[in-house]
Amino acid sequence: MENIGFNKPYLTGRETYYIHDAVSAGKLSGNGKYTKKCHEWFRNTYDFGKCLLTTSCTDALEMAAILLNIEPGDEVILPSYTFVSTANAFILRGAKLVFADSREDHPGMDESKIEDCITTKTKAIIPVHYAGVACDMELIMSIAEKYNLYVVEDAAQAIDSYYTFKDGRKRALGSIGHLAAFSFHETKNIISGEGGMLVINDPQFESRAEIIWEKGTNRSAFFRGEINKYGWVDIGSSFLPSELIAAFLWAQIEKIELIQERRKYIWEEYNSELHNWAGNLNIGLPQIPGFATNNAHMFYLLCEDIDQRNRIITFLKEQNISAVFHYLSLHKSDFYRLKHDGRNLRQTDRYSDILLRLPMFFELEPEKVINRIKQFGLL
Amino acid sequence: MENIGFNKPYLTGRETYYIHDAVSAGKLSGNGKYTKKCHEWFRNTYDFGKCLLTTSCTDALEMAAILLNIEPGDEVILPSYTFVSTANAFILRGAKLVFADSREDHPGMDESKIEDCITTKTKAIIPVHYAGVACDMELIMSIAEKYNLYVVEDAAQAIDSYYTFKDGRKRALGSIGHLAAFSFHETKNIISGEGGMLVINDPQFESRAEIIWEKGTNRSAFFRGEINKYGWVDIGSSFLPSELIAAFLWAQIEKIELIQERRKYIWEEYNSELHNWAGNLNIGLPQIPGFATNNAHMFYLLCEDIDQRNRIITFLKEQNISAVFHYLSLHKSDFYRLKHDGRNLRQTDRYSDILLRLPMFFELEPEKVINRIKQFGLL
Repeated sequence: MENIGFNKPYLTGRETYYIHDAVSAGKLSGNGKYTKKCHEWFRNTYDFGKCLLTTSCTDALEMAAILLNIEPGDEVILPSYTFVSTANAFILRGAKLVFADSREDHPGMDESKIEDCITTKTKAIIPVHYAGVACDMELIMSIAEKYNLYVVEDAAQAIDSYYTFKDGRKRALGSIGHLAAFSFHETKNIISGEGGMLVINDPQFESRAEIIWEKGTNRSAFFRGEINKYGWVDIGSSFLPSELIAAFLWAQIEKIELIQERRKYIWEEYNSELHNWAGNLNIGLPQIPGFATNNAHMFYLLCEDIDQRNRIITFLKEQNISAVFHYLSLHKSDFYRLKHDGRNLRQTDRYSDILLRLPMFFELEPEKVINRIKQFGLL
Repeated sequence: MENIGFNKPYLTGRETYYIHDAVSAGKLSGNGKYTKKCHEWFRNTYDFGKCLLTTSCTDALEMAAILLNIEPGDEVILPSYTFVSTANAFILRGAKLVFADSREDHPGMDESKIEDCITTKTKAIIPVHYAGVACDMELIMSIAEKYNLYVVEDAAQAIDSYYTFKDGRKRALGSIGHLAAFSFHETKNIISGEGGMLVINDPQFESRAEIIWEKGTNRSAFFRGEINKYGWVDIGSSFLPSELIAAFLWAQIEKIELIQERRKYIWEEYNSELHNWAGNLNIGLPQIPGFATNNAHMFYLLCEDIDQRNRIITFLKEQNISAVFHYLSLHKSDFYRLKHDGRNLRQTDRYSDILLRLPMFFELEPEKVINRIKQFGLL
């Protein structure tokens, strides 16, 4: 039986062409032609603030933590059901993590639990748009305003996804928080192998972001002719990716409509074709809240319990299909278990146990997975 | 008159071929086939300890600072005549910088000044092999041993360069300190656009380095089958570069002998042809200490004073040649000026004023620069 992996990076066909062009131009380090093309496209397409490509989403989150001047003792509120990078970026600056539980209907952070996590030391809220599905950004931004906090959207999975405000305004995810971080890791909708982007929507952070990105120097201002020599003015790192990475990403950007159309088709096939099967087995399918759109980053099942999930994983493995669970709760990790404030995170633990991701990639033929998975429960 | 830039990245011709191969294999994120090929080659060729490619030399230095558990209040000793990343990596962990002056005969750190910088809070010494020329590693390692300190070689410019011990043993730079960091930025001898590598020579750091590299998770051990699930066990970041970067670097590695031969030829041409001209104008040429080799990373002039340097830069500009000065002293930077301990760093300031780098790249025809530069002083 044909082997179906969990992910297969999709190539538009122009990646090596643009890389070759960048190589020929002899500019391979960061912030060249393709980096600038990507910045401009993202900004114009999604109405983002200043955009800065980074070597990873992790690095974009680290830039955010530096920009917010996170210091030892500061607290940040984030979901426990997330990738380690959401947490590490703030831990590296000495922050204490306060985990909010996930929603009952969705693995994203339960917005109603946020206020209970706020103390006088809270500095920022980090909503993670799980599976590319929006958190309730209007509510989160109003809480942030009330308590004078910053919001960093962890939009790693959320490219080309939207949030609708109560007044009907529709905004791209990543354009709402003070800062936002995206990933272009090979598992994402558009990719560059490893890669990410920081979006700076609050203009107060714009010039410092550029400095931190350029290793703490005012090099960018120097090359714009604003100052006559550049030097060390702040902390920073080498956050900017090679032009090779930006050139690859540019080829992906060109085909984002095609990519999104295909992924949404696959997602809808899963959703409609598995509906009855799932219902019979007490398996839940993804819920998209009314204020969110679906960018078809991920399709998952919510199994009855961990045993059922294990049985489905094993069954699919026998059918040569790779389906995988997702995050282990960060508050139960070896690293943070003893530092966690003891808060009960029932939904987080539930998703850790029952969520199962099905294969999702451009070239997937969903009927092959659907036909095989439907055999589960019949035997 | 033909324009001669300061640097032009050299392409061996196989870069896009290997990138295409990596792309076709469908593995674009980090730690794939080409990453492993690079690791193995460096380890075998230079007798390095464990090697881990990183997105930049900056990131390799940051990994080193994390591995050494640098904490607020800890002190590190480094030259002031260096790139900001040597300093930033440790500043990000809260370290206090103690700057040692440069040697009189070379911009590298003056080893005789190190002991005077040591206090009970000193944790590490960071020798920078300026221009790829070794610091006196035997002396530095003996000081480190005496005071129980760690040594991190900043070998950003020092690939394929060696140090000879008093007993005649010759070791590659980067293989001697407990840790070492390399750069493959497009200005270096072998390149990947942006890129770097951490070398772990002290085995006590090996397993933790792998965890920090993989975002604080024990994912590598999981994929080797040593544990049956992986999770968050430590701080970390996304330090590993895309396979695109590793594939590019592999094409460079294949031609390193050719590259080094050509660069050394250019360097020797400069050195012999400019000897008399420089002597007449009281300009110094690079000195290579007896314990060091020359990897031809850089050719520089030591001008009489800053005015002469400015006049030569202007003269060469009129001849369409780009020659550039190098570091501004970090202890005089806007960021660190007020934090510097006040130590007099006379040689550092001297090199900041008088050092001038001449164009140096594979495809350079050195006689073109030599012929034009020799006109300076005749007019």
